[in-house]
Amino acid sequence: MRYFIEMAYNGTPFSGWQVQPGQGTVQGVLENALTLLLREPVAVTGCGRTDTGVHARQFFAHFDTQLAFDPDRLADKLNSFLPKEIAIYRIFPVADDLHARFSAVSRTYRYYVAPHKECFRFPYTCRVFQPLDVEKMNEAAAILLKTDDFTSFSKLHTQVNNNRCKVTEARWREEDGLLVFTITADRFLRNMVRAVVGTLLQVGKGSVTVEGFGQIVERKDRCAAGDSAPAHALFLERVEYGERVIG
Amino acid sequence: MRYFIEMAYNGTPFSGWQVQPGQGTVQGVLENALTLLLREPVAVTGCGRTDTGVHARQFFAHFDTQLAFDPDRLADKLNSFLPKEIAIYRIFPVADDLHARFSAVSRTYRYYVAPHKECFRFPYTCRVFQPLDVEKMNEAAAILLKTDDFTSFSKLHTQVNNNRCKVTEARWREEDGLLVFTITADRFLRNMVRAVVGTLLQVGKGSVTVEGFGQIVERKDRCAAGDSAPAHALFLERVEYGERVIG
Repeated sequence: MRYFIEMAYNGTPFSGWQVQPGQGTVQGVLENALTLLLREPVAVTGCGRTDTGVHARQFFAHFDTQLAFDPDRLADKLNSFLPKEIAIYRIFPVADDLHARFSAVSRTYRYYVAPHKECFRFPYTCRVFQPLDVEKMNEAAAILLKTDDFTSFSKLHTQVNNNRCKVTEARWREEDGLLVFTITADRFLRNMVRAVVGTLLQVGKGSVTVEGFGQIVERKDRCAAGDSAPAHALFLERVEYGERVIG
Repeated sequence: MRYFIEMAYNGTPFSGWQVQPGQGTVQGVLENALTLLLREPVAVTGCGRTDTGVHARQFFAHFDTQLAFDPDRLADKLNSFLPKEIAIYRIFPVADDLHARFSAVSRTYRYYVAPHKECFRFPYTCRVFQPLDVEKMNEAAAILLKTDDFTSFSKLHTQVNNNRCKVTEARWREEDGLLVFTITADRFLRNMVRAVVGTLLQVGKGSVTVEGFGQIVERKDRCAAGDSAPAHALFLERVEYGERVIG
């Protein structure tokens, strides 16, 4: 039987989602906890891989087991067992062919920019001192909707076959005293959101023009884009599974 | 010339507002920074005294100086100089007899209770595992509006002359997945909000009845009330100076 876990995590203390030898990762901590509680080796597959320090406000993972158990009780036990930075919302059975990663049809990320000193939200926001031209940032962001090759914003030397993504939303909005970038796509390349945000911030500061941003996109060369924005202000916000009924 | 500072602080790393020998306090850190930047000894007077770990979303302090300076530039410099847990919003001249503490006509505190595991907001919320009867908690809270002696919720052996407070608002509301208690009064005794919240949580859990809460209030005996709720979920939210125009 396959089970989905709906959860959230604060990326601050973790070396990202994916298991890495000798490092504390969300996947590693979760697999250990499930293996201990279910008393059999459990492997979990996540809906994506977040980098070191990146947060997830909604995240799905699946695992397979033949054991019988009460999913709600397992969720409660996991919450007691796991560190305070991981919250399990629910665990529920799904069809055997529903895959946390491959069945997801879209992901939404949000990036939080703070124009002022934030004495409470500093762990989750990136302070930018210069004034930003939000209108220009949104003009540049709109170019992403007409793009399908994101090589310019991809990490070099990755193993993916192609750098094509379908971006359906890319917009900056003011929200609760912060400047928030929301981007939705069917898939994301490694480091893509942080590279896009870093380059859009250059547009906002005036060091890259909107036309220049368009040229960076077209050049398909990662060296053309700006520096990656810091990880701690990035949240995986939402993951959609389309028509398929889950939970 | 007298100046007001409008600010906020995250109480996590501080031993409260008030200067104490050998301890990191907000007042101590602020006085040191102002003394260094203005190059003369500066003493600041706060609008109140928060306990160790309590936060302030709005806080006012005043100081006197004969020096001429640009208040906005001083605020910027202070923000660079002070730790990330203190944010200065503005500094502005006021009438010489406006006093940060004695001219304030009301203070509002908020207390944040989390019914679920909070992987992002845990530094600012208090997790309560048992289900709470919010209606009963609000019936009990309403008794506070008809009370003027808060001896039952005061720290023992304090130096104040009387324990009278005029509470004008005391209500629990659900907000953004949390249960939030808002209380406004002309003044607060030491430890009062945390003792009130701790006792109201007992009402919510059913271990104290609404009538029992009324009797605790009438008994004027601190030992009758419940334990203080933890400090880290308490915020000084707003301070009002009434008709007097400030800023």
